[in-house]
Parts: sequence; C-alpha cells; structure tokens
Amino acid sequence: MMFDHDDDKLREECGIVGVFGHPEASLLVALGLHALQHRGQEACGITTYDSEKFINERHMGLVGEAFGGDLTNRLPGSSSIGHNRYSTQGKPALRNIQPIYADLDTGGFACAHNGNLTNSRALRRKLVSRGSIFQSTMDTEVVLHLLARSDQETVADRFLDAIRQIEGGFAFVCLTNKKLIGARDPSGLRPLILGKIGDAYVLASETCALDLMGAETVREIEPGEVVIINEDGIRTYNPFPSQPVRPCLFEYVYFARPDSIVQGRSVYEVRRKMGHQLAIEHPADIDVVVPVPDSGVPAAIGFSEHSGVPFQLGIIRSHYVGRTFIQPTQTGRQRAVSRKHSPNKAVLRGKKVLLVDDSIVRGHTSRKIVQMVREAGAKEIHFRSASPPITHQDFYGIDMADRSELIAANNSLEEMRQFLEVESLGFLSVPGLYRAIGEEYDEEAPAFADHCFTGQYPTRLIDHDQNESGKERQLSLLD
Amino acid sequence: MMFDHDDDKLREECGIVGVFGHPEASLLVALGLHALQHRGQEACGITTYDSEKFINERHMGLVGEAFGGDLTNRLPGSSSIGHNRYSTQGKPALRNIQPIYADLDTGGFACAHNGNLTNSRALRRKLVSRGSIFQSTMDTEVVLHLLARSDQETVADRFLDAIRQIEGGFAFVCLTNKKLIGARDPSGLRPLILGKIGDAYVLASETCALDLMGAETVREIEPGEVVIINEDGIRTYNPFPSQPVRPCLFEYVYFARPDSIVQGRSVYEVRRKMGHQLAIEHPADIDVVVPVPDSGVPAAIGFSEHSGVPFQLGIIRSHYVGRTFIQPTQTGRQRAVSRKHSPNKAVLRGKKVLLVDDSIVRGHTSRKIVQMVREAGAKEIHFRSASPPITHQDFYGIDMADRSELIAANNSLEEMRQFLEVESLGFLSVPGLYRAIGEEYDEEAPAFADHCFTGQYPTRLIDHDQNESGKERQLSLLD
Amino acid sequence: MMFDHDDDKLREECGIVGVFGHPEASLLVALGLHALQHRGQEACGITTYDSEKFINERHMGLVGEAFGGDLTNRLPGSSSIGHNRYSTQGKPALRNIQPIYADLDTGGFACAHNGNLTNSRALRRKLVSRGSIFQSTMDTEVVLHLLARSDQETVADRFLDAIRQIEGGFAFVCLTNKKLIGARDPSGLRPLILGKIGDAYVLASETCALDLMGAETVREIEPGEVVIINEDGIRTYNPFPSQPVRPCLFEYVYFARPDSIVQGRSVYEVRRKMGHQLAIEHPADIDVVVPVPDSGVPAAIGFSEHSGVPFQLGIIRSHYVGRTFIQPTQTGRQRAVSRKHSPNKAVLRGKKVLLVDDSIVRGHTSRKIVQMVREAGAKEIHFRSASPPITHQDFYGIDMADRSELIAANNSLEEMRQFLEVESLGFLSVPGLYRAIGEEYDEEAPAFADHCFTGQYPTRLIDHDQNESGKERQLSLLD
Amino acid sequence: MMFDHDDDKLREECGIVGVFGHPEASLLVALGLHALQHRGQEACGITTYDSEKFINERHMGLVGEAFGGDLTNRLPGSSSIGHNRYSTQGKPALRNIQPIYADLDTGGFACAHNGNLTNSRALRRKLVSRGSIFQSTMDTEVVLHLLARSDQETVADRFLDAIRQIEGGFAFVCLTNKKLIGARDPSGLRPLILGKIGDAYVLASETCALDLMGAETVREIEPGEVVIINEDGIRTYNPFPSQPVRPCLFEYVYFARPDSIVQGRSVYEVRRKMGHQLAIEHPADIDVVVPVPDSGVPAAIGFSEHSGVPFQLGIIRSHYVGRTFIQPTQTGRQRAVSRKHSPNKAVLRGKKVLLVDDSIVRGHTSRKIVQMVREAGAKEIHFRSASPPITHQDFYGIDMADRSELIAANNSLEEMRQFLEVESLGFLSVPGLYRAIGEEYDEEAPAFADHCFTGQYPTRLIDHDQNESGKERQLSLLD
Repeated sequence: MMFDHDDDKLREECGIVGVFGHPEASLLVALGLHALQHRGQEACGITTYDSEKFINERHMGLVGEAFGGDLTNRLPGSSSIGHNRYSTQGKPALRNIQPIYADLDTGGFACAHNGNLTNSRALRRKLVSRGSIFQSTMDTEVVLHLLARSDQETVADRFLDAIRQIEGGFAFVCLTNKKLIGARDPSGLRPLILGKIGDAYVLASETCALDLMGAETVREIEPGEVVIINEDGIRTYNPFPSQPVRPCLFEYVYFARPDSIVQGRSVYEVRRKMGHQLAIEHPADIDVVVPVPDSGVPAAIGFSEHSGVPFQLGIIRSHYVGRTFIQPTQTGRQRAVSRKHSPNKAVLRGKKVLLVDDSIVRGHTSRKIVQMVREAGAKEIHFRSASPPITHQDFYGIDMADRSELIAANNSLEEMRQFLEVESLGFLSVPGLYRAIGEEYDEEAPAFADHCFTGQYPTRLIDHDQNESGKERQLSLLD
Repeated sequence: MMFDHDDDKLREECGIVGVFGHPEASLLVALGLHALQHRGQEACGITTYDSEKFINERHMGLVGEAFGGDLTNRLPGSSSIGHNRYSTQGKPALRNIQPIYADLDTGGFACAHNGNLTNSRALRRKLVSRGSIFQSTMDTEVVLHLLARSDQETVADRFLDAIRQIEGGFAFVCLTNKKLIGARDPSGLRPLILGKIGDAYVLASETCALDLMGAETVREIEPGEVVIINEDGIRTYNPFPSQPVRPCLFEYVYFARPDSIVQGRSVYEVRRKMGHQLAIEHPADIDVVVPVPDSGVPAAIGFSEHSGVPFQLGIIRSHYVGRTFIQPTQTGRQRAVSRKHSPNKAVLRGKKVLLVDDSIVRGHTSRKIVQMVREAGAKEIHFRSASPPITHQDFYGIDMADRSELIAANNSLEEMRQFLEVESLGFLSVPGLYRAIGEEYDEEAPAFADHCFTGQYPTRLIDHDQNESGKERQLSLLD
Repeated sequence: MMFDHDDDKLREECGIVGVFGHPEASLLVALGLHALQHRGQEACGITTYDSEKFINERHMGLVGEAFGGDLTNRLPGSSSIGHNRYSTQGKPALRNIQPIYADLDTGGFACAHNGNLTNSRALRRKLVSRGSIFQSTMDTEVVLHLLARSDQETVADRFLDAIRQIEGGFAFVCLTNKKLIGARDPSGLRPLILGKIGDAYVLASETCALDLMGAETVREIEPGEVVIINEDGIRTYNPFPSQPVRPCLFEYVYFARPDSIVQGRSVYEVRRKMGHQLAIEHPADIDVVVPVPDSGVPAAIGFSEHSGVPFQLGIIRSHYVGRTFIQPTQTGRQRAVSRKHSPNKAVLRGKKVLLVDDSIVRGHTSRKIVQMVREAGAKEIHFRSASPPITHQDFYGIDMADRSELIAANNSLEEMRQFLEVESLGFLSVPGLYRAIGEEYDEEAPAFADHCFTGQYPTRLIDHDQNESGKERQLSLLD
Repeated sequence: MMFDHDDDKLREECGIVGVFGHPEASLLVALGLHALQHRGQEACGITTYDSEKFINERHMGLVGEAFGGDLTNRLPGSSSIGHNRYSTQGKPALRNIQPIYADLDTGGFACAHNGNLTNSRALRRKLVSRGSIFQSTMDTEVVLHLLARSDQETVADRFLDAIRQIEGGFAFVCLTNKKLIGARDPSGLRPLILGKIGDAYVLASETCALDLMGAETVREIEPGEVVIINEDGIRTYNPFPSQPVRPCLFEYVYFARPDSIVQGRSVYEVRRKMGHQLAIEHPADIDVVVPVPDSGVPAAIGFSEHSGVPFQLGIIRSHYVGRTFIQPTQTGRQRAVSRKHSPNKAVLRGKKVLLVDDSIVRGHTSRKIVQMVREAGAKEIHFRSASPPITHQDFYGIDMADRSELIAANNSLEEMRQFLEVESLGFLSVPGLYRAIGEEYDEEAPAFADHCFTGQYPTRLIDHDQNESGKERQLSLLD
C-alpha cells in the first residue's frame, strides 16, 4: 500500500539486493528487486558472475517488465547483485543506471549503491585532477575510482580503503569474481539486511525482499559494518571510527513497505501507532476517518481505532499511471485533473471528515485533495499528518523539494492551515513519532536521523558547505 | 481500489464514452476512458469528427500512456467516442481494437461497443453468404454490416433497423458526421449513463467517468433505449419489444468503481452492506478481518463494522505488474512466486483471521492467498465471499473461466472448503446480495441478471444453442 | 543496375510472385520478391496456406530485412503468394500492403496485384451503395468484393466473373486453399511469367525472379490469360473479349532488371541497342560517354560501342540512402546537396562530355546532374535520353509526375535544352525505340503500349473520364 | 561504385571529419560522413561544441538515416567532429561508437580515430595497473587516458605527449572547447586531408568528403604531422622522430572512393591503369571483359581499353541488403543463394569471359561468382585480380580475414586457379601496382605500405609480438 510516484512525495534513491552461492542468483535478485520496487521505479539493473565473466543488464522501467521470464539463462551465475533506481523528472541516461562496473587491475568489480555521498564532488575533483576519467554523473563512481587507485593489494583491502574516504548515507552491495561485499554507512542512514536461503547468503534493503525471495532474515547489517562473503563464509569489518548510530526515520514514515520489519519493528504497526499518537495529540469532532491512499491507510486505521470514529474509503486511488492530460486554456477554465485520486461522494457528502496522510512536503497535493473532498460535499475537513513538519532538506539519498519549497520550512501552522483550506491541521510531534516507534526522544542524543524535522544533521556536509552541490560539470558523453 | 488483472478474476469487455458538442471532445473522452480504465486495460481507442473528416487513434496499453499530452490537436473536433478494451492473454490484433469504422453510403460511421451479442455468429454467417467481407473478429462488426445493407434511408433508421436484429448484452456509442448515438440492450445488461457539461452531451459506462470529465449525471439510459443526439438536442427511441429489465449484478459485485453510482445506489455502500450481510449470514470467532486487496476492502470494512472485529491490512498488494518470474524446475522446487500479494506477518501471526474477497471464480488464487496467510503464521483462516457461488457462465460480455473451471459449479461447499484449506468458508446468499442492494429477491421475476448464480438467463442464447460459440473461422488477414 | 528511388523517376506499382506445390513455398516467394525489389521498396508481404489456415506477414521495408532468416517455420505451407510495393512519399498504412485477404463464403482468398484499374472508383461506388464495406484504399479490394458478391458457385468461376468487370492494367496472383491463380490484363500491360521448379509451379513479374528462385522459365502468361493451378496441374482460361496486345514499353526502358528476359528479348541487349540507335540518331563531337548511373549504363555502353568514344564512369553513385540533409537558409546559400551522384573530376575536367540517361521525366534531376558535371570542369555537355519524350501520363500502374510536370509535355526541344543548360539534347525516336526492340513501328496498330510517348491509350479510362481520379473518399479507419 | 559489405572483402576502420569555425559545423560533418559512408556503415557519431557545452549523438546505422533532417538545431555549434564505423558481424555496443569524450581537468575533450594502434594493449595494461578505469574496448580510449594523466599543462601539450607514446596507423580529429586537432601517424598509413570553406577549416579522410561539403582541398596532412586549429588560425607540429613515409596501398586498390584524389592522384585513373597493367601482364584470348561490380569496374574498363575486348555488364549487382535467406537442409539441396550478384545470361552465354575484381581475399566469394557465371553459360572463365596476392595481415586498421584464411598466403597460383575453377588466373604484380600509381617499386625502400603483399611491415608490432592481440579482457559493463 506504499507505492507512489507523486511529485509532492519523498523519493528514495534505490533498493539493492545481492546473492552469493545460489544456482538461481539472478532470479532471486530479480524477485528481491520486485519486492523493493516501491524504492525506485525508473530503472533497474542486475549483474551476475558466471565463473568466467561478468554479465550485466540494465533497463529503464519496472523489474517485472525488464527481468520477468526465464532469467537464469540470460543472467547465469551463482552470485549476483541488483539495483532499483527511483523515478526522476528528466529522461535519464542509461549510463546512470546501476550496477556499475570497472575492470580493475585486481579483476572485475561491480557495485550497486543506495544513498548519497556528502563529499563526492570534492573527491571527484581531486580524482579528475589526477587523471581519472569519469563515465557517469553518479557519486557511486567515485568509489570505483578510489578502488582503482588504492595502493592496497587485495580488492577487499582496496574497498575498505575507498569506503573510509567517503561520507554520507550509503548502503552498498558489490560483486567480484569471488566475493559479495555489503556495507552500510556508520550512522546507519541507509538500511541493509542479511539473510540466508539454505547455504546461500542474501543482502537486501528490506525484509520484504527477503520474504519474496524465500530467504530467512538473519540480522541487519550494523551501521558502519562491512561484510565480505566468499566460499568460506562471511567475515565482518568495521573500517570506520566510532560514531553515533542514527537510522533514518523516513523508513518508518514512508519508505519501507508496511510488511517490512525495520530494526525489529513491524513498519505497519509503527504506522498504526503513529495514528494512535495522532489521535491523542490532535483529536477532532468528526464523523469519519479517511486515509489519503495508499500511504495514509495504516495511520488512518490507527486513528480510527483510537478515536472510535469509523474508517472509510472516502478517496479512491487509481493505480493507472500515465502522462498528464493537458487541458487547453482557451476554454477559460483550468480545472486540475486528478488522475490519481477520486472522491467517494457517498462517504464524504455532508460529513465532518478527518483526512490522514503520512506527511506533507510541499503541500500542493494535500491542498488539491482537500479541494476535491470539499467539492464532493464534505461539511468539515480536518487534516492530520502522521509525521512532524518537514523543515530541513536531506542530503543522504532522499530526493525532496528544495528547502524553499518545503511548506513547513516557510510557514506557521496557521498559515499552512489556511493554505490547505481545512478546518484544522495537526502534525505528529517529534516525541510522538519516537513514541510510536517505541523509543524516547532525547534531543541531545537523538536515536534516529531526524534532521528533516529538527535540523540536527548526523554528519558533515562537505559538498554542501563548499557550495559544490550546484551546477554539475559536463561528464562522459559515452551515451 | 478495484483495478485488477488477475487471471482468476472476472473481466468485462470494455468501457465506452461519447461526447457531443464540446470543443475539447477528445480530451473529455480520454478523461472518461481513464476513469473507466478498470473496465479494460489492454487497449484503447478514440475517434473524433472534426467537421470534415473522421480521425481515429487506437493503441495497445493504458489511456494515460496512449492519450496523455496535448490531445485536442491530435484529435480535434467537437464530437468524439472512445473505448477501453479488457486484458486478454494473447497478443491481440490492432484491428480488434475499437472504435471501428465504416464508410457507408450515408457517410462515415464509427462505433464502440461494450458487451457481447448472443446471435452474432448466426448473423455473420448469413452476411458472409451474401457477400459481406469482414475485417475483424469482433461481433461489433456485424452491426456495421447490418447498417451497410439496411434498406432504410437515413443512418438513424439504419441503426434502429440493425440493432433490432441483434440479441445479447450491449451498450453502444456511435458517431456520424452529425450525430452521437447511444443504445442499451433491452434487458439493461450493460450500463450507459447520460450526462451534460454545459450544453454538451456525454455518454459513459459509469458515473465515475462523468465525475472526472466534470460532467453532471443526468440519468441512466433506459434498458432498450436508443438516444440520438444532434445539434437540435436529444431524441429517444425504443426499437425493441417490451421485456423484463434485469441489469447485471456484477456491476455491484465487482466491475463498477466503488465511487460510481449504479441505479441510484453507491457501489461502495452496497459493497459495505454486502459485508454486513456476510457478517449476519456467516459470523465467525476471529481476531481480525483482513481484505483480499483491493476488491475485498469495502466488504471487509462492512464485515468489521457489523462484527466489531478489527479491520487490518494483513495482505499487502503490489501494484507493479509485469511478466511472471519463471523458476526453473531443475532445482527441485516449484515455489509459487506471488508478485501481487504479500503477507503482513505482524498482523497475521498467531491470529484467527477472516479473509474477505468479492467473489471466488476458479479458486486457485484464493487457495494461494490462503497458503500465503497460513505460512505467515495465521492460527485459523476463515474465508468469506461477498457474492454467492458462481455456478453458470455469462454470455453477455463478461469473460470468466469455462463452466468446467468454475469451482462452485463443480464442488460442494465442503469440497471447496477443503480445496481452499480453510477452517470455514461462507458465500453471501442470493437473497442476501439482493438485500445489500436494497431489493427483495423474487425467484420468479428476478430484478437483476443473476444467471451466474442461478442459471436463469435473461435472453435466448442463439449462437450457444446452435453450438456456434466454438472454433472461430479465419478472418481478415489485413493486419 | 536498375534500382532507384529518385523522385524524378518513374515508379511501378509492384512485383508479384506465386508458388504452388513446393515445401519451401514462402522461401521461394521471398527470393523472388528480393529479385524484384527494384519494382517496389516500400513494403512487402507474403501469404501462405499450410493445409489448414492462411498465414500472412506484411512489413514496411525491404524483403531481405522483413523475410530473411528461417522463413519456412514462420510461414509454412506448400503454396504461397507475395508482393512488393513501390515507395511513396507519405507514410502509408499497413492495411494498404498486399497480399490482401478475405474470408469468403467459399473459403479464404488471398490476392496480390501489380497494376492499376481504370474503373475501380466507379465499381467501388456501386459496391458501397449495395452495402459493401471497404477496408483499404487499394483498387485491388474491389476485386475481392466482386468475388464475394458473385453469383457463381466456385471460387474459380467467381474470379473469372469478377475479373471480367475490371479494366486497366493488371497482373494478379491469388491463393485459395486449393489453387494458385494467375491473371494478366487483355492488353498485356503488366507482365507475368510462368516457371517451374521440378513439379512446382511458379509465377513472377520477371524472369530474374525465376532465376534467383532456381526455376526454369516456361513462358509468359498471355495477355488476357487466366491460369488456375491446382494439384491436378494447370488450366488456362480466356475470359476477356479479344483485343489488341500492347505490352508496356517501359519494361524495356526502365522497369525490368537488365538480366531479365521480356518477351524473349534480353533487356540489357535492348538497352544497349537503344544506345546504338541514339548514336545513330543523335551523334556528337565528344571526348567521353558518361552514363547517369545506374539506369543509363547499358545505353551508354551501346552509345560508346557505336560511336567509338570511350565509356567512362564520370559520375559516381552512392547507394546509401537516407533523409535529406537540410541546409538552413540563414547562411545565404541554398546549395543543392546531392546525396546520390558525385562527379568524378578526373574524367570530366576539360572534356566534351556526352551524358546518357534512360529517360527524362520532370527534368529537375537531369538539370542538377548537368550543373554538377559543369562545375566539375566539363567543357561541353551533351545530353541523350534513351527513350522518346514523355508527353502523356500513364493510368495502368506507373506512378509518374502529373502531366503538368512532364517537361516534354510542356516544352519544345529547344526549351528543354535551355532548361537543362546543355550544348545539345537528343531523345531516341519512337521508331528508333521500336527498332532497338527489334520491331517496326506501325502508328496505326502499335505493337506496344506507347501512350506515354504518343497519347495512344490502349484502353478506356472510365474513372478519369468521369473525373473520379481526384479526391479520395475517406475509408476504413481500421488502422 | 565502391560500397560493399561483403564478408570476403577488406574493411577499414572508419572515416573521420572535423570542422572549425563554421555556423553549420554539424551539418558539414554529416555531409562529409555521408560521402565517407563507404569507409564504415555500422555506426556514426557527431560531437559539437556550442560555446558552452559539448553535445554528442551516436547512432547505429547510416549517416543519412541518423543525421538527416534539421541537424543544426540538434547539434549546434561552430566546431564539430564526426566518425563512421565499419560494419562488423556481431551486434556492437553503443559505447564503442565514436567520437569518445572525456571530461579532463583541462576541460572537455572529444576524439575520433581511424586506424589501429599496435601497442594499445600494452599501454592499457599499464594504465589499468595505475588505476585508470576503461569505459570501452576501443584502443582510442588509451589516448584519452594518456591525456588525462599527462603532466603537461595545456591540452595541446598533453595531446602531443600522449600521441608520442602510441604506435601503429592512425588519423585523429579531436575537439576541445577552443581547438580542432588533427593528427596522422608518422608512416602516413591512414589518410587525412585539410580543406577550407571560406575561413572555416575542414579535416576529412578523403577529398570526396571535402567535395560534398563544398570545401576546397588545401593539402594532405603530412605523415607525422599534428595540426592545431583555433581562432587564430592553424599551427603545425611534428612530435615524432623522423621515419620513412609509407602510405597504405589499399586506399588506391579498394578503400578510397573512385572520385577521391589521393596524394595528388585520381583514384579512378589509378584503377583504370591497374586494368591496363593487368592487360599487359596477363592477357587472354577472350570475348568479353566483365567486372565484378562495383569495385572491379574501373580496372575492367582499363583492361577493356588496353585489350580492345568489349566491356559488358555480365554481372548485375543488387544494392538491396538484408539478412541471409536460409534454405532448410531437409530438401536435400543447399544451393547458395546469392542476394548480391546475378548473372546477365545474354552477355555471358557461350562466351569466353574475363572477370576483373579489385582483389582476392579468402577466395570464397570469387569462387561463387565463377560458379554463377559458369552456370549462366560462359564457355571459358578467366579471372584477374587488380591487386597482387594478399599474403600477410594488416595491423593498422584494416579488418581482413586471419592469415590462415587468406587464400594467397596458403596456396600456389595453380592451387588458387583450381579452387576458383577458372581457365586462367592472374594477379597484378607488386611492381605493376606501383607502376599504375606512377611510382617505381624499390624493394629496399618501398614508397608505400605494401606489407599485405610483401610482409614488409612499416612499424613494430608490440601487442602482436607480445601475443596480446588475442583474447580481450572484459571491460566496462556500462552499456
């Protein structure tokens, strides 16, 4: 119930999967990527090693389209990694799809990455000045060049050497001719889970991928942990200096699939409890609780449970995507045509309606939904966000609007209420969110990466501070 | 919440839309078809008349893909009709996409059809023997040839002449250079609604299409009514002999979108009441009510409301479609890989679960869902179908399995329970279904077409009785 | 050396091939069509009958692209027909590609046609008024409807009945489930040759197709002859009233491949002799004979042989086609960029050059070539056309410019010389052309269809006289 | 008359073009590439610099398809380079199409290359060991990495530094944001011509490209010369140690278009004289001289001129390409189906025929042509090759069969005659070839690169001697 392309929603950079030691490695990776499709719908890629050579396929579009059918013949081999890429506006280059690959002195090396490095531009500038030629605009490529230039002997040591130089939020799965490597940033900003199918090892961004692959969940890769899996088993490394662990709250709020388990907690249950907290913090005199589908459904169920007000599908969501229908202006009107949400008048007409959504980013979509519900005959409309006001940008792999576009960064609660044109507006509090997760909020030492709500960033922001996040240099024309 | 491609579901042959007298006719038709996308996802087509010529575009795939963008330049004209086609297994010919068109002696004539004729093969055989050459395998084409050969003078009279000769379930929208024609079969098996936008007339299969188009609903076209709309307004005709009106129950049970109004009743509310009736007829000692998403949701909400047992999302549905992932048999296993439904273990584990679905057709998908829920740790599983047992085939435009494959046509309730491997199984009764709609069930003179549950067909079945429904002749190779 | 897409050249409507009684029928048809590629490059199609059903494939583009590879699996069956379509400006509809097919009361009937009917519009109007629905804009379809409506019992009788009603230039190959039918118009305007491979019968537009298929040439189908081939052998019919035989001269001048044998004469030798006649009729004081490649080469060799002046490749032809390179006007220039012909300066500079081309249609291409040769440094340029001045249009299947665009229809010899900007200009005379073929020219009873040079049309021109050749009605929208 | 895809022919790696200082630079490059289409039909690419950024387009297929239409909008800028790639068997990666590009520390650098480096593998191995990551399998990329790692300050100095390290046959055109660079290997193995259009400079592989672009030829770039063109004009550099100049003979024999001027000599005239020499060295008692079209035509004209025996088109060439037509073996036959050459029986039957081709590589095609001519009724067949026996491979950019497949490397003249099944066989001698060009043959200090006929290679063959030419390492998977 989580899968959304809304341009007024957050977007994550990707889901990743790796398999080592299974005769159908690529098929398992494809299944895992399919389960992680909500983390990226734009493009997907799978690389395998078949004991002789690396084989790679990268496609625009969905996993089920690109990698359905008889995959093990197309992508043979017992080890494999794969990657989903999120959806962007522009038409992206095929060369920016992962996994990426380099033929190093130590042999082939393929790599898939979820997250964003906060010092990639600074590193890149240094590498180019020393004669490295970049093929893509992906920060992931920096890691390949650091490996290629490392003085270390083995590919494992080179990887540890390279990864120590990068900063930001990241989870990696990498493939060599003998190894599967997994890694997670020291803050634990991006997730990575370890599983097993028989003797085969599996890595994936979420447990729902392990479920579909038929794997049992072993444990989460620890923040700052590197695992290197080969025929002799799995070894663990901790190349980073110690630092506070602060996993990303948005996995609970929005990214993870509701049937995933994150840090031992059911995402669905956390979201229901966010609904409970919301009902406690922001009750209202209402007739019906209506979720903004699909992402607002669990919190709305929770709100209904705690408040005793009936839960009804007052908004119907179409899952058929497509281009926008353009309405010429000559007719004098400019009615917004919603292709995604339709009002269920029988539920809304004459009612005091409470709408529940997971979050409010720019506010434009919420405003349109409110208008639609109003036109359908609702008597009153109360809006509840199951997460706190988003006041700061993310730099670790979540694609959201510029800070100037974040409604909560630039408006008071009352201004937002007026913008949305609702009778009342309520956001879950930061402590309330921690409580729904089952933790206490400690402002001095927060247990999670809550910077989007608080401005407390877990790492340095080198590119940003050096003003490097701006205009891109022009890069490889090999596409 | 209704949009489904399941091969164990019913499929309707199409949604249709027509507009007369609006400068953006094609755009409105596209919006209407988009709203009706749940009635057919395989292909879509739009025809307009721009005062000089007919323009036609037909595409495989979704309306939003095919007809998004700036449509009024591509398909200009103030009158237009359109058609959605449902999804089939094989790759269909472009020539079988509607609207279809013929250049008659009286001028151009375009036509879109929802339904199925029960005497089309008999008519076709006769027409071919007289020298008509067919271009497609669609029964709709029979109507064109009947028009082309009619002795009547005007195209309107020819249409009435032609339509009097056909039998079965049908709703038509047709376009000439001066007229928009709508028609509905005398039993009212297939729906058609009349609406207006300002002075412009609109016809569509469901009210949800009128809503998205920004049209107000005027009324349903009556069973057996033909409306002919031109610059002077709308005229109504009743070419058929009087016969009992029996609209199709499946619009309530499955086809119509929950936000549509069918014969004055909210589809969503009818489905909730089906849940109430189910709770009355088949209560159970359970911990949680879980819908089979998306079509089982409203009835599950209703069951929860009436029984007081909590409603929870115990099954998560992926909306990402694609080809099947094939698992080679050499590995000894043959695990069914569900790409669509995932269990939400946190909700299911250790619980007595009641699953609610809209209907059970062949039973295979239900059985897989039960297995999945069981593997997720449910302690007990009770299954409820919000419609009665489907024991007979439809011949009026609903594509379902052969009678030999209908589980309820060939098994006792206990056999079905064992096949599904559930602790209990319950179907809504026929009277209960009528009651949810707000009608009393009269076995002698049923108010609806309930033949799939009762075997009481509303019309003759000429092709079927003459054994003509079998092998197709080979037809036009013009594709 | 004949294959040309020039928009200042004549175009023929198609090459046709048929095979009966050979296990690789479709492959042989594909080979035949490949050999006939010069008669049509736009599209191609093949139909086979595999003892159970008709199978059809029609494609845009060349035969080698469309039907290369392992064809006998895709298009099985021991009888087959095929068709090449010539290249037009606009993007043509797939439905206008042949063979076309109809499912008649007597069974399936497929048909491929080379030529043009001069009364098709009149026939079509009559058929539509009686209720026939047309699928295409091809005149060939008229024949199908005449067959469908014929009172005759057998398909053979129906075909004879239908073909008696049409007028113009035509060669047909048709396929039923038991027969291969060939037919040629009573004037013999369009060619058709009978061949054999072992016991299998073959029909094709030219002998070069039989050569590539490995068939031996049996004889030409006679003008006005219909042959019906089935398992029992071949039977011949003459359904038409007797009339003068007048095969088309342009087969010798331009259409046929130089290695084909037309009416017992080598096309290459006829063209060489056209060069001899040209040298006799229009000698000149020159240094070098230069052909306009490729179609002018044989006549240029003949001119060189008779005159003793050396033959040299003074113009190089590129066989790489593609779109035009557009040169923006802002640069002040508008140099015509010839993508096809390049001057060979080493041959031309300072020389008195005689250029030989097969014909002059609108004159624009010839003028450009002359300019190019002049710029390359030629001292004098003399132009010779190996055919007489084209003063009248064709209506039997040759696509040429409108009469208003034919340079020889609207200009004196001197005006043409000045337009082309050459020192001298000479056309082969009509008697000279007959002489090259080995016939005497009898103005009263010409042995060939020479109407383009003389205005003496061999048949009535019903559509043209009734002014029906103008604007097309709008036809089937089934594409 | 030169354009050939035969798999029994030589293939050149590419044509290149560069333009500096013209508002329609990309259009001119496209025209130049179109004129050079015979040097490579597989793929083409154009890069421009529009004062702000580099723009690149690379396509499979022909220039006229890829770059026809309004190019100056798609590829704006006043400087541009382009590249044609020759046709290979396998489906090549888009990333192996040139121009290639790198974003260096000094700015963007694009590069197109004709030729082959003989030490690229050794260089590549060294670069990878130092941490360079390669994106392609092209040896051209080595040059980019040498530039990227050069210690020199300016891009010009870096290019000179890089180019000094490479060996083999090469011509380069390179583009920076301020410069167009041209370079030719010190032996002059690969050609490069300098031209001007007004004030704009042009570089191209052959003069025929300059002709189509409307440029005047200034001079050939000297062997070993580097020219750097910027706004201030052109400067020339000689970075290589002095060594003997030995241009490639195959430009005369086969590669260059007949209307090109190579080193001041008309290619067409040289080929005609090769025919004269052949007639002197290997006369025969024959009836007719028949070229193997198109490449044998000029030499056949020359043979005819010198011998007085008539030149006739005894073989007709089809210019329609496509896939092979596969003939199933079940029918017992395996007739070779020639899609390219057809016999003109009228010319061949009963005649003593002398066939002239430009060269004999593996001999298989020649043998098929002889068989075809024999079956067409020739009484005697004499075969003449307008170049000497090819006994050694090339390593400088000509793609030919392995040495083991070269018929002349492994057979005596008599064995070859028997293999071809001809009455007589004659090859032009090496001194005769020099004579046709107008030079004397000096075995000690040959004026041309004649290694394919003599084994005298003009450079070291480092990769080959180190046995590096064998199996490729696996490279970038970024495609």
